[in-house]
Formats: sequence, C-alpha cells, structure tokens
Amino acid sequence: MRAIQYQSAEVPAKVVNIDHPTPGDGEVLVDIKNSGLNHRDIFITKGLYPNLRPGSTLGSDGVAVWKERHFLVNPNVSWGPNQQFQGENYSILGMPKDGTFAEKMVLHPDRLAEKPAHLTLPQAAAIPLAGLTAYRVLFSRCQLAPEDRLCVSGIGGGVAIFVMQFALAIGAEVWVTSSSQEKIDQAKDMGAAGGCLYTDDSWHKILKKKSGGFDVIIDSAGGTGFSQLISTANSGARVGIYGGSLGKIQDLSPQLIFWKQLNIFGSTMGSDRDFEAMVRFVDQHKIIPVVDSVYDLSDFQNAFDRMDKGQQFGKIIFDNLK
Amino acid sequence: MRAIQYQSAEVPAKVVNIDHPTPGDGEVLVDIKNSGLNHRDIFITKGLYPNLRPGSTLGSDGVAVWKERHFLVNPNVSWGPNQQFQGENYSILGMPKDGTFAEKMVLHPDRLAEKPAHLTLPQAAAIPLAGLTAYRVLFSRCQLAPEDRLCVSGIGGGVAIFVMQFALAIGAEVWVTSSSQEKIDQAKDMGAAGGCLYTDDSWHKILKKKSGGFDVIIDSAGGTGFSQLISTANSGARVGIYGGSLGKIQDLSPQLIFWKQLNIFGSTMGSDRDFEAMVRFVDQHKIIPVVDSVYDLSDFQNAFDRMDKGQQFGKIIFDNLK
Repeated sequence: MRAIQYQSAEVPAKVVNIDHPTPGDGEVLVDIKNSGLNHRDIFITKGLYPNLRPGSTLGSDGVAVWKERHFLVNPNVSWGPNQQFQGENYSILGMPKDGTFAEKMVLHPDRLAEKPAHLTLPQAAAIPLAGLTAYRVLFSRCQLAPEDRLCVSGIGGGVAIFVMQFALAIGAEVWVTSSSQEKIDQAKDMGAAGGCLYTDDSWHKILKKKSGGFDVIIDSAGGTGFSQLISTANSGARVGIYGGSLGKIQDLSPQLIFWKQLNIFGSTMGSDRDFEAMVRFVDQHKIIPVVDSVYDLSDFQNAFDRMDKGQQFGKIIFDNLK
Repeated sequence: MRAIQYQSAEVPAKVVNIDHPTPGDGEVLVDIKNSGLNHRDIFITKGLYPNLRPGSTLGSDGVAVWKERHFLVNPNVSWGPNQQFQGENYSILGMPKDGTFAEKMVLHPDRLAEKPAHLTLPQAAAIPLAGLTAYRVLFSRCQLAPEDRLCVSGIGGGVAIFVMQFALAIGAEVWVTSSSQEKIDQAKDMGAAGGCLYTDDSWHKILKKKSGGFDVIIDSAGGTGFSQLISTANSGARVGIYGGSLGKIQDLSPQLIFWKQLNIFGSTMGSDRDFEAMVRFVDQHKIIPVVDSVYDLSDFQNAFDRMDKGQQFGKIIFDNLK
C-alpha cells in the first residue's frame, strides 16, 4: 500500500510502498478513504517537531471504513485521565504512531466515531484534529455562549474556520482578522459580522470601534500582534490561545490583564470527551467543513506547499485510495 | 481635623486641617483610628493614577469606630452587579472619593464589616485593600486548593504576604521569590517551604527543580521576569496577575501557554462579595496581618518613602488620632 512517511531531515516526507500493517492487541485494520492535512504535518517535515521517528507514517486526520461503515478517526493517543490537560504519554496520531496518510492503518475501535450522516467523506476527513482543537478552545476552555461577541484571528486556517462555524451555529456574533481581504470576504459570506486586515495601521482600534469589543478572542498567532489583539477585549473577556505561529508575545500589558479581569486560556487539541462532544455538535448543528481542495496522496508536496504558503481557505484533503 | 490630601502635581500630598465632613444621604460620620498605606497612594502622589482630583483625602484602608464598635472599612466604591469584573463607575476609596487618611470620614454603613475579635486595631487597618486583592486573586480567580503548590512572587508587599498567609491557612505548600534574602527568610519563618532570589541567574530553573513546579502562581510584577516565572508552572496551572510593577511582559511563549493548558487570570481588588468572604476567612482562620511599622499621620512622608523604596515587610500603618 502507499503511505507518506517521514524519512530523515534530508528526506522529510516521501511516498513509499509498504506492506499492510498488522493489528496489535485489540486493534483492527481499516481502510482510510480520505485524510486531512494539518500544520503539524508541515512542522514535522521542517524538523520543527520533537522526537521525530524515521519511518513514521504522517497524518492525524482521516475517515476510516470498517465493517462497511464510515468513521471519523480520533487523533488522540493516550490523552490521559485529566480533562484539564493531556498526560505525559500523550501524542497525536501521525508521529510517532503511524497516521492517516496511507491506504490502510491499524487502530483500536475506541478511536472510531461514527461519521455524521450529512457529511461526504472528504468533509468528514476535514474534521478530526481541527474540529477537536476548535471545540476545546471555544467551548471547553472559553465557554462561548450565544450572547457573546467573538473575534477569531487569522481566518482561513482549518481551526479558525471551525471556530467561526461553531460560534455561528450557536448564534454568537463573529468577527475575523486576516492579512487577506479575500479571506475576510469569504468569512463574511459564511456569516461573519465583519473583519479587519491586521496589516493595516491601528487595525485593533478600528476593529474595537466597529465591533464594540469582544467577549471571547481566539488566537493562534501570538507574536507582536497579540497585545494589540487583546486590547479589543471587553472586561471579563476570555482569550483562547491554541497556537503561536508568529512567535513570542511582546509588550503585553499586565495592567490591561488585571484591570479588565481578563482570562487567558491555553488550549491544545482536546480530550477524548472533547472529541465525542465535538462530533455530536457537528452532527446536531449540521456543520459542513470547508474543504479547500482535494489532492491525490501522491501529490502531497503540492498540498504541503499550498498550506505552507497560507493560500488555503479551509482544509486540504487527500484521496488516499486510487 | 487632620487629613492627608492630594493637592496638585507640585504638592501631591500634604497634611491639612479641615472641618469634619458632613454625611450625605444615608451616610454616617465615623472616627478612623488607624489607616493603612498602599502602593496606590504612592502612585497617586507620583501622578501615575488617572483622574486625580485636587483636595481628595487619600487612603483606602482603615478601621472605623461607629457606635463604640470597631469595623473594617470596605474600600470598594460601586463595584457593580457583575462578580466577574468591576463596573464602569467603580473606584477605590481615597481618590476621587475622600479616603481614610483623616481623623474622621463619612461613609454608608454598608461599607462597614465587623472587626474580627482577634485583631488589634492596627492589624485590622492592615487588611482591607490588600486582603481583598489577595483573596480574590487566590481564591475567587485561581481557586487555590489545599493540595496545590503555590508560588508568590515579590514577597514582602502587603498583598503577597496575605496571599502566602491565606494559602498556608488552608494547608497549601507555598514558595516565594524576592530580591531580598532577608524577606525570603522571613517568609520561611512564617511557614513558606522555600524561596529563590529572582536576581540570581537561572533562578526559575532552580526554583522549578527545588519545588517540583507550581499549580498556582501569583504575580504582581510582570516585566521580563514573568516569562521565566511561568516556566515553573505545571500543566493546567492557574496564574494570577494582580499588578505590573515591572512593566510590560516580554518574550512570552504561546507554546508554553497552550501546551501546558495554562490559565492566566487578571484580577484587581474584589467585589463586595469577595470582601465579605475575605473578612469571614480572616476571622475563621485567625489570620494576623503582618504590620511592618506604625507612623503618626503627620509623618506620612517617611512612611511613603519606606514603601517607595520597597523596604517594608508587611503593611505600613498610620495612627490617625493623636
């Protein structure tokens, strides 16, 4: 079967032909019809991820066929018993444990969640890791409520779009930021109330004035813009951080944080309980993920490049089976 | 009567002789036996506080005599209905509303909480604002529990010492940081498990190793040391920020925040409900505030200087009545 594996720093990802994997204790062999690309896969191929194991099959997102039924694959490996944080043995499918960028994989049936009926297979493959991350940061951590006004920074990425969709689904007002007017317009087409280019001067002042300020802010950039972003927070606001693509946060005012009684919550992935709740939410609210594009598994390099350049709006999906 | 009033940028604080104030609607006239100095009073005299009103009597902390009984004065003016944050009309006694640095003051009886019987009057005067701030950040915000290991930065200040005392009272393990070995030793004498000089190289690595990492961290400094301080946090830790004496936070890692699922809570002062709960807690656990020194009201400049230089350990108190 075909699989995309991490080889070495020199050959970070390559299509290989390997034997079907053999199920371990309690595991089953499933077909993977579609899989989804995440920034994590890019980080791995750039060597920006710890404990890289040569010969690991990449990929955290997938839709599996088992006993002629379709399932979302839960990307968690050993979250552990505490809902507040992942345990020490936690990892994500696709490094070091073999992931979803293959025609078949082995996993325990408790990693399978029935596919909501309203979703196509590529749509379903777009959900697991990004949907889980979005659900946890937005609901389990920031407790978004229908009466809240939300700002999602960097709209266009997989998690950010889910955050927006989930928030719109419960009736919250959503605003977005991006460096691309096209992405802001796409978000408005999907129901966002408005947005700002964070490349504009004084964008945060304009955004605060236009929106009226935010009860919840979800960010994955950090960097120098974070302090500007949270200057748009209302008193008592909850700020969720699920990434740091622009590096360390600078010039953050403690006075703003304590005077406004802000709550800043770090969040990454989510527990198995978050995963179950997220799949139920997607089913109940008939969320349809945004699929940016579908590539054949062999064409992975073009897919990786598209994500690396930030050109996508929504999830990049693979067809795993020829 | 004597009062210490803010006059102008040129004469920021001065002992004046004025008439007794006249009670407004529902207010009563009380004697103030002792009052307590806060950093806020220093900030006001340095012009580092907004909306300074010439002729305001300074002072947020006091113990009042009314109908021959002793009361702690609640320093809140109009917290508002929301427990999560203070309302727009919130202010603290002592600017612009006349405060406790006077022989008498007028206030509404709902601002008076019966003095716990185990306290002397100077001890009681040490409690209100610092005790309130400590109680809210530690319990209402960071939900400290007996099984938690706590780090309090900058031990020696009024709030930091209350944080330590309150935590020790419920059985939590407490560690401290300071730039003074003497203050660390004083904290250990009071029950702290240990401490570190934050002026030492790699102090945060040493502190983490010695302590085993923290479940709750309480900070009022911010600045460049904040990122080092929170590197000592355990997964799921709660970090309370109630001040920012060292300025803006730099080089804060979003990766640390999201990977450890940290919770950072801004907190300032506290609601009337926090105040009531704090006074009950002090009574129940027989907390005895640390009084650094007692000055006559006329000698305020020496008291201000002592606090400004950070020489105190505990609260600086005034004798208001000759």
